Amino acid sequence: MTDNARPGRVGYRDIANDLRQQIDSGELSPGSKVPGENDLTSQYGVEQPTARRALDMLKNEGLIVAKRGSGTFVREFKPIRRVSPDRLQAGTSWGAGRPIWTTDVGTRPRTEGVTVDVELPPANVAEVLNLDDGVRVVTRRRRYVVDDKPVQLATSYYPEVLVAGSAITEIDTGEGGAYARLKELGYEPTRFREELRVRMPRESEREALDLAQGTPVILIVRTAYTADDQPVEVNEMVLDSAAYVLEYKFTAHD
Amino acid sequence: MTDNARPGRVGYRDIANDLRQQIDSGELSPGSKVPGENDLTSQYGVEQPTARRALDMLKNEGLIVAKRGSGTFVREFKPIRRVSPDRLQAGTSWGAGRPIWTTDVGTRPRTEGVTVDVELPPANVAEVLNLDDGVRVVTRRRRYVVDDKPVQLATSYYPEVLVAGSAITEIDTGEGGAYARLKELGYEPTRFREELRVRMPRESEREALDLAQGTPVILIVRTAYTADDQPVEVNEMVLDSAAYVLEYKFTAHD
Repeated sequence: MTDNARPGRVGYRDIANDLRQQIDSGELSPGSKVPGENDLTSQYGVEQPTARRALDMLKNEGLIVAKRGSGTFVREFKPIRRVSPDRLQAGTSWGAGRPIWTTDVGTRPRTEGVTVDVELPPANVAEVLNLDDGVRVVTRRRRYVVDDKPVQLATSYYPEVLVAGSAITEIDTGEGGAYARLKELGYEPTRFREELRVRMPRESEREALDLAQGTPVILIVRTAYTADDQPVEVNEMVLDSAAYVLEYKFTAHD
Repeated sequence: MTDNARPGRVGYRDIANDLRQQIDSGELSPGSKVPGENDLTSQYGVEQPTARRALDMLKNEGLIVAKRGSGTFVREFKPIRRVSPDRLQAGTSWGAGRPIWTTDVGTRPRTEGVTVDVELPPANVAEVLNLDDGVRVVTRRRRYVVDDKPVQLATSYYPEVLVAGSAITEIDTGEGGAYARLKELGYEPTRFREELRVRMPRESEREALDLAQGTPVILIVRTAYTADDQPVEVNEMVLDSAAYVLEYKFTAHD
C-alpha cells in the first residue's frame, strides 16, 4: 500500500495520473475500454494490488465505471432532462435558447413498483406538512426507470385527512394523477418549492439505483402548496446524478 | 488486500460496516471523532493497511472527513441556502412554509479574487451565446468564500461587443452589479435558465474548493436572456455540495 513512497518505483498514484491524463486529453474517450488489472501489472511492472488501487481511485473519482463481466470503461454522460416548472417543457411561452449540455430529450422515464401505505411520516416531513405528532400520511413510493435502469426513487406524502377515500390512496391515481385529484378535493397545488442537496449515496440507495462507484445522488424535496399556503404534498426524490440534467426557468419578475 | 476473503478473519469491509452502522444509528454523531488507524488495528487485531482501507472506504462514501493534524470526524452538514429566483429570498410574496433542511440563513458568501479577461469562449458557451467562431467574450472569474473556506467558483461570460467600455470590464462593476450595467446598456436580463448537473470533482476543482474526499460538486450554468430572447450572460458555477442547499420556487402558472 505504501509502494509509491519509495522513490523510483511506480505507485498506484502514478498509474492513476497516467490514465486520468489520457481521459482528460480524450486519448481514452467516453465509453472506451480502460486497461484491466492484468494489463496494468505487465505494463507498469507492478503487483496486482497496486493496479487495483489505481483503478479504484479513478472509480471513486467517477471517471471510470466497471461493468460486470465486460471490463472497465471511461464514464459516459448521456442524461435525460428534468425541467421545472414542467409546464415550460414544451418551451412555447419561452424563447428556445440553446442548452449548455446535450440531453436525450426523447426518453421519458417509466414509473414502476408503485406501493401505497398509510403510516406516520418522518419528523421533518411532518414539520413541513404542519402535522401534529401521531398524525398519519398516505405514502406513495415508486421508482422511475429508463431502459430497465432505475434513475429515480420517489416517495410522496399526503396528509391522510385530506386524501382518504380518493384515488390518491389507489395504485392508479387516474387521469391527471395526484394533482388532478387534489384539485377535485379542493386542494389544488398552485405553488411549489423544490429544495436540493447532493451527497454520496447510502448503501440502500446505491443498490436500489444500481449506482456505479463514484456516483453521487441528488436529493430533491418538492413541497406543493395551495393558494391558501397549505402544504398538501411532500415528494422526496433520490436521483442518480449520472442520469439527469436538471433545468429551472424563471423570470426577473417571478 | 484480500484479507476479507478468508473466513474468520476481520477484513476492511467488516470494520467499515461496523463504523457505518455506528454513524447511521447516531452512536457516532455528526462532528464526533472517529477511531484512528492505530485504534482500529488494536481494536480489531488487523494490520495498518486494513484499518486504512476501512477508513478510506467511508471517506469515499462521504461519511467521514479527515482534518489535517486533528484526526477523522463524522461529516457534518451545515449548509447555506441559495434561493432562485433570488427576488423571493425575503419570501414576501410567498407564504413562508417550513424548509425540509436546516440552513445557515444568516451567512452570505463573500466574493474574492475577481479577475477580468477578454478571450475566446469555450465552444459550448459560444453556442449558448449565439457567437460565431472567433468572437470574443469578457470573462469575469471569482470565487465565493464562507469563513475563509471557498464554497463556489464562478465564471461569467459576456459578448465583448455588448459590454466593451462598461464597468462590466472593471474589477468593480459598481452599484447593482453586472445586471444593472446590462440594463443601462439596453440589455436588461428578464428571464433566466439554470441547468444543473452533479459529478465528482476534477483535481483542480478539488484543490480550488478544498474539498474533502467523497464530496461531489454541483455544476450550475445560468443563462440570462433579454426580453428579445437575446442571451447576454452565461455564468458557469461549481459548488461545493457540502456547503449548499439549493431552493427553487415557482407557481403552477409560471
